[in-house]
Amino acid sequence: MMNLAPSLHDCELLDLQDPLRSLRDQFELPPGLVYLDGNSLGVLPKNTAARVAHALTHEWGQDLIQSWNSAGWFTLPQRVGDKIARVIGAEPGEVVAADSTSINLFKVLAAAMHIADADHPHKNKIISERSNFPTDLYIAEALCKERGFTLQLVETEDIEAALEADAAVLMLTHVNYRTGAMHDMPSVTAKAHAQGVLTVWDLAHSAGAVPVDLHASEADFAVGCGYKYLNGGPGAPAFVWVHPQHTDRFWQPLAGWWGHAAPFAFTPDYQPAKGITRFQCGTQPILSLTALDSGMDAFLSVEALGGMAALRQKSLALTGLFMQLVRTRLHGHGFGIATPTEEALRGSQVSLTRDDGAYAIVQALIARGVIGDFRAGDGGQHPDILRFGFTPLYIGYADVWHAADQLLQVMQTGEWQEARFSQKQAVT
Amino acid sequence: MMNLAPSLHDCELLDLQDPLRSLRDQFELPPGLVYLDGNSLGVLPKNTAARVAHALTHEWGQDLIQSWNSAGWFTLPQRVGDKIARVIGAEPGEVVAADSTSINLFKVLAAAMHIADADHPHKNKIISERSNFPTDLYIAEALCKERGFTLQLVETEDIEAALEADAAVLMLTHVNYRTGAMHDMPSVTAKAHAQGVLTVWDLAHSAGAVPVDLHASEADFAVGCGYKYLNGGPGAPAFVWVHPQHTDRFWQPLAGWWGHAAPFAFTPDYQPAKGITRFQCGTQPILSLTALDSGMDAFLSVEALGGMAALRQKSLALTGLFMQLVRTRLHGHGFGIATPTEEALRGSQVSLTRDDGAYAIVQALIARGVIGDFRAGDGGQHPDILRFGFTPLYIGYADVWHAADQLLQVMQTGEWQEARFSQKQAVT
Repeated sequence: MMNLAPSLHDCELLDLQDPLRSLRDQFELPPGLVYLDGNSLGVLPKNTAARVAHALTHEWGQDLIQSWNSAGWFTLPQRVGDKIARVIGAEPGEVVAADSTSINLFKVLAAAMHIADADHPHKNKIISERSNFPTDLYIAEALCKERGFTLQLVETEDIEAALEADAAVLMLTHVNYRTGAMHDMPSVTAKAHAQGVLTVWDLAHSAGAVPVDLHASEADFAVGCGYKYLNGGPGAPAFVWVHPQHTDRFWQPLAGWWGHAAPFAFTPDYQPAKGITRFQCGTQPILSLTALDSGMDAFLSVEALGGMAALRQKSLALTGLFMQLVRTRLHGHGFGIATPTEEALRGSQVSLTRDDGAYAIVQALIARGVIGDFRAGDGGQHPDILRFGFTPLYIGYADVWHAADQLLQVMQTGEWQEARFSQKQAVT
Repeated sequence: MMNLAPSLHDCELLDLQDPLRSLRDQFELPPGLVYLDGNSLGVLPKNTAARVAHALTHEWGQDLIQSWNSAGWFTLPQRVGDKIARVIGAEPGEVVAADSTSINLFKVLAAAMHIADADHPHKNKIISERSNFPTDLYIAEALCKERGFTLQLVETEDIEAALEADAAVLMLTHVNYRTGAMHDMPSVTAKAHAQGVLTVWDLAHSAGAVPVDLHASEADFAVGCGYKYLNGGPGAPAFVWVHPQHTDRFWQPLAGWWGHAAPFAFTPDYQPAKGITRFQCGTQPILSLTALDSGMDAFLSVEALGGMAALRQKSLALTGLFMQLVRTRLHGHGFGIATPTEEALRGSQVSLTRDDGAYAIVQALIARGVIGDFRAGDGGQHPDILRFGFTPLYIGYADVWHAADQLLQVMQTGEWQEARFSQKQAVT
């Protein structure tokens, strides 16, 4: 099997047999594009334009201020949060959709540090991976500066050893944004708890991409992103979950009025609401939040077709197929595979490495209508990455075949070496 | 003049002569409604539906991830910020539109406390007004708890006396959300600076409502709201300004990747960008930010018609007219006026008081198509408020007359005493 390249016909047959194929019809997929960047920005669900237009022209334009009640704007963070809860193993009332991932991380990390201070005053270290998504590290760095904690960054294989006496919080991204490698959340959490270490999980690349069960994993805190696998639109609000055993122990410091027990009593002193509501801060961007609500509705239609288990099965098949095509049809073109081949260890993306030209090859592929992205390495242990996200909601097997085929043509023609493909844009 | 009630005909003549009357055509005003709640949620500009639809279906739906470059999503916070700068006396490059007012307040207050710590280590008190908007007080309370500062709340007349030796930061809302009373920003700032006290101004009820000149006032920090007088839509991103002499002195603690000097270098350590960019944190809600951009374009069309000076003149005329109608036609119905009659001391709203029934009267007015709102008092020094915002962009003199006339009918019929008007909703 390792040396056999599946044909386009094989892949088209797999699409015909795919029990999730109908989900694709719920999304706007630009014709002629193979979009393998849903791990960066998910595509537009077909219902979203009408939903946002209604919120804009009717709820805002006609009903104006009364829509805070009549259209339920004020409870929208909770209602969207309840939908997100269903894909991450949380209970209703435990999640709110609000603010950005960075800001939510600040809230939960600050709360975790308070709890660590109270329960284990000698613990003053946050442990994370050097290859974690940088904004997570920046937020932790800033909080450590403020609180007199230390941020210790380690390589993946050194995480367990770092869970020592002074470790207070382990902050990890469940699926690595560069490599697509996935942590075993229950196992890592258990090891952390055995050392009295709280866990903060960033689900940016796992919510909607892989099965997540926060309660079964006994996780402590989690945040995640609304605009990747949940298809909430550019910069959609993020989400935050806190285990109920922790929510009411401390304020989080972004103590705005939406987290108040009685926000419309307008009292001068802060009284935090019970539960996850206190992890809200200020007024939320309702148009963007409405788009996320619509994205969640599109996503949850998978529940009638086998849910996350079915999505996961297809995701593994898609990423496995792409790796197989790289190993066979792209053999000899200098690509390495940074993503774990073991299914239990990978998310829903495949990251390739190459000694040179990774950026230009991605640009040449984009010019051919295959959208992946490039993530720069550090010139050392972490190489440049060609990153391809496979969103099982709307990506098919033939898409995977075409992506590998276009990559082969980019390499065979040598077109990636043209100067136009090496000019870097500000954002990729 | 005090005892003469202007007639509807007088008001219609004023509308005909109003040099700003044409601006009204840029906004969707629901027929039959007199909307005096633009100080809570501004109305929908006519261009916004098409702008948001384009961002949604074309930029997101078709161009997907490349819109971060091609549609300028990544620089949208700065570009919208530059438009806001024009109405608050800031320079281009000094303002970003991002996050919520509460979160931006956290950023600038944290920065101000850092600067106070460095320059005046003995100063450890934040001074604010007891009647300030509560979320501002909650954020200050939380930061004081974290940093060992004290939050001292005083009545308006006691602010100057509170600027004592240990005062580090004076945090005020320029125009009070309840009463519409406006601080003299240059004078208050000068008094604060004379005592070595930094100033943080919340412009939620003044940006777009009254002339603001942050540089001429020598202010230190400012935040404000996008969804009130700037018509950015429900929960639109807020904005933040920091005087250039302060921006680069310290990180603000919400040190996310959008504030990094090179966000796409993905380095593990935080290097803050120069200037106001470091007051960004995470990815912004692009659909809501696009609506704010459109709101600013509608707003800035006033620049061809006399700008903020012309808006201010009309605003004072509208609020003055309403107060005159209350004093004449509504004489004997138990209303007091909480808003200063002196023009230099008031914003763009009029707040009425009444010993009883304020909530029910507002509800009865809403049922008649005059939208104001109610703000509860504290049973003591701060009475219940009937609040009416007069947005000179789209409110006319005849609107003011009708609002007062409907209020008179509510009182004359006694209908406000019907039980249906006293049942409180969750949010008003």
